[in-house]
Amino acid sequence: MSTENLSLGNIYQAKKRITPYIRRTPLVESQDLKTITDANVHLKLENLQVTGSFKIRGASNKISNLSAEDKERGVIAVSSGNHGRAVSYIASLVGVNSTICVAKTVPDNKCQAIRALGAELVIVGENADEAMVYADKLQMERGMTMVHPFDDLEIIAGQGTIGLELIEDFPEIDTVIVPLSGGGLMSGVAFSVKSIMPSVHIVGVSMERGPAMVASLKAGRVVNIIEEPTLANALAGGLNKDNKYTLPMVKQYVDETVLVSEKEIAEALWFCLNKHHIVVEGGAVVGVAALLSKKVNRLGKNIAIVLSGSNIPMVVLKKIINERELAK
Amino acid sequence: MSTENLSLGNIYQAKKRITPYIRRTPLVESQDLKTITDANVHLKLENLQVTGSFKIRGASNKISNLSAEDKERGVIAVSSGNHGRAVSYIASLVGVNSTICVAKTVPDNKCQAIRALGAELVIVGENADEAMVYADKLQMERGMTMVHPFDDLEIIAGQGTIGLELIEDFPEIDTVIVPLSGGGLMSGVAFSVKSIMPSVHIVGVSMERGPAMVASLKAGRVVNIIEEPTLANALAGGLNKDNKYTLPMVKQYVDETVLVSEKEIAEALWFCLNKHHIVVEGGAVVGVAALLSKKVNRLGKNIAIVLSGSNIPMVVLKKIINERELAK
Repeated sequence: MSTENLSLGNIYQAKKRITPYIRRTPLVESQDLKTITDANVHLKLENLQVTGSFKIRGASNKISNLSAEDKERGVIAVSSGNHGRAVSYIASLVGVNSTICVAKTVPDNKCQAIRALGAELVIVGENADEAMVYADKLQMERGMTMVHPFDDLEIIAGQGTIGLELIEDFPEIDTVIVPLSGGGLMSGVAFSVKSIMPSVHIVGVSMERGPAMVASLKAGRVVNIIEEPTLANALAGGLNKDNKYTLPMVKQYVDETVLVSEKEIAEALWFCLNKHHIVVEGGAVVGVAALLSKKVNRLGKNIAIVLSGSNIPMVVLKKIINERELAK
Repeated sequence: MSTENLSLGNIYQAKKRITPYIRRTPLVESQDLKTITDANVHLKLENLQVTGSFKIRGASNKISNLSAEDKERGVIAVSSGNHGRAVSYIASLVGVNSTICVAKTVPDNKCQAIRALGAELVIVGENADEAMVYADKLQMERGMTMVHPFDDLEIIAGQGTIGLELIEDFPEIDTVIVPLSGGGLMSGVAFSVKSIMPSVHIVGVSMERGPAMVASLKAGRVVNIIEEPTLANALAGGLNKDNKYTLPMVKQYVDETVLVSEKEIAEALWFCLNKHHIVVEGGAVVGVAALLSKKVNRLGKNIAIVLSGSNIPMVVLKKIINERELAK
């Protein structure tokens, strides 16, 4: 059972450990969302986080805490996105070799971004699953530490530090809305918030196109879903089949889940850009999409929404802008 | 002489006074600018400030400090932009009536934005000068307090709080780059930084199209310039002809001025969007433009650039994006 494995003390330990590496991101009020919802709505700007997403919190908690021997042998991860960037960045910073495995289908600019942060990039396999098989093999051969993107208690504890910051900055909080994918961010934030304030209503939001965690919650076990193209690509991908932590934690701590459509995600991206002059990625804006589409069943009067990252391709942003009628 | 009228103590008083109303904006490192300049470059994100620009600092210092009688009679300002928004917002918040005068030429969406924040909007005159004449008349008639956009010691002290935050967050600082227009922001930041660390090199940046302060510094007196359309429209407009504070303060405290072209401003807007996923307005990005164009004569190793606001029209942002070749 998950609560036996993780304590609020672990979140505070993570906070202390990662403080030198992360930004204390601001929590800003949204007047526009206040008008729409008749509630105080605050946005947690993890889009301003180091490497452009919250992923650095978990990665730095995991990697900075390795033993000297493990540091010597290096770390490995599979991710072409925010997790890959975060691992590559923090490993370089603390002097640990990192290897990031990505499939051959990953675009060149993403590969370059990860390499630029310091990792050895291994391009292998026709898809993410094949890259994972190779990474497992490499990990065994070289004795490296696998840095899982979500199903790891140190990763979860790192992401959970966001929950502490929310409560510190906004102690009246009664509702927290968080993007939901593999469940590392969701488990960490829900655990830390509920441990301190059990009455806070926790909402997880996924996209309609391939919501692996929501499908697994429904089935009561890990189920495979078909990956579809989505604006919220950072939330795409399945759970690991031997999931240990995030499925039970999300089941225990999350009160409500919401699914949003591609159109609702696009509207929310435009809302953040036009009303707040904030650039976020599709996967980061699903909480705003849930609010704008009025899909959250139970809304309190003091709401925090986690905007989890900013790494949107400029072509996508261009499309979002060009689809609008603009005032001169 | 300016230093006789303003003390570092006034800046600290302003800091205390405005803390309930403003955001302590983050100072974030730019890896990309570090690579380009071979120096530590930090960006002060006043684009994330309440009402979208630094202007709220001066306005809240001025308005919250009025006597009960002056509060009763209300405040007046002339501005269709960031200053107008800030005055309208803070006046509503502290329960003071505000009147904002704008010329008939001001677009409807800007008028709506100011009204939405709570001010009475008076649309009068064919241009800003005529609106100003009317505002002066109204001020006399109604006994309201004029909130000048820059040439006022309480406004300057409010903007100067940015200097304190820069030094608190980045005590190694040796170079500060600030947008330069009427000189309220520049005077405040330069005064507070130089008062604490006299050796810091202070750079003011204006646009080539209508740099009133730079022309006035050269002439040794206030000179009129012809207003031209510019991406940095927040920096447009002349000095007041009876300038008391900002011209002498900029003369005394600013070590270097730089002018940037429209093309350089557009490049800097794109740089902030593409590399940092940050939306700023043209007038706010001139410091980055000065760095990217290598026009600053003396650059230290620990540089802070003030990004002063985010209120860019979406049509302008659209143009900036559509002019680029984007990777898929």
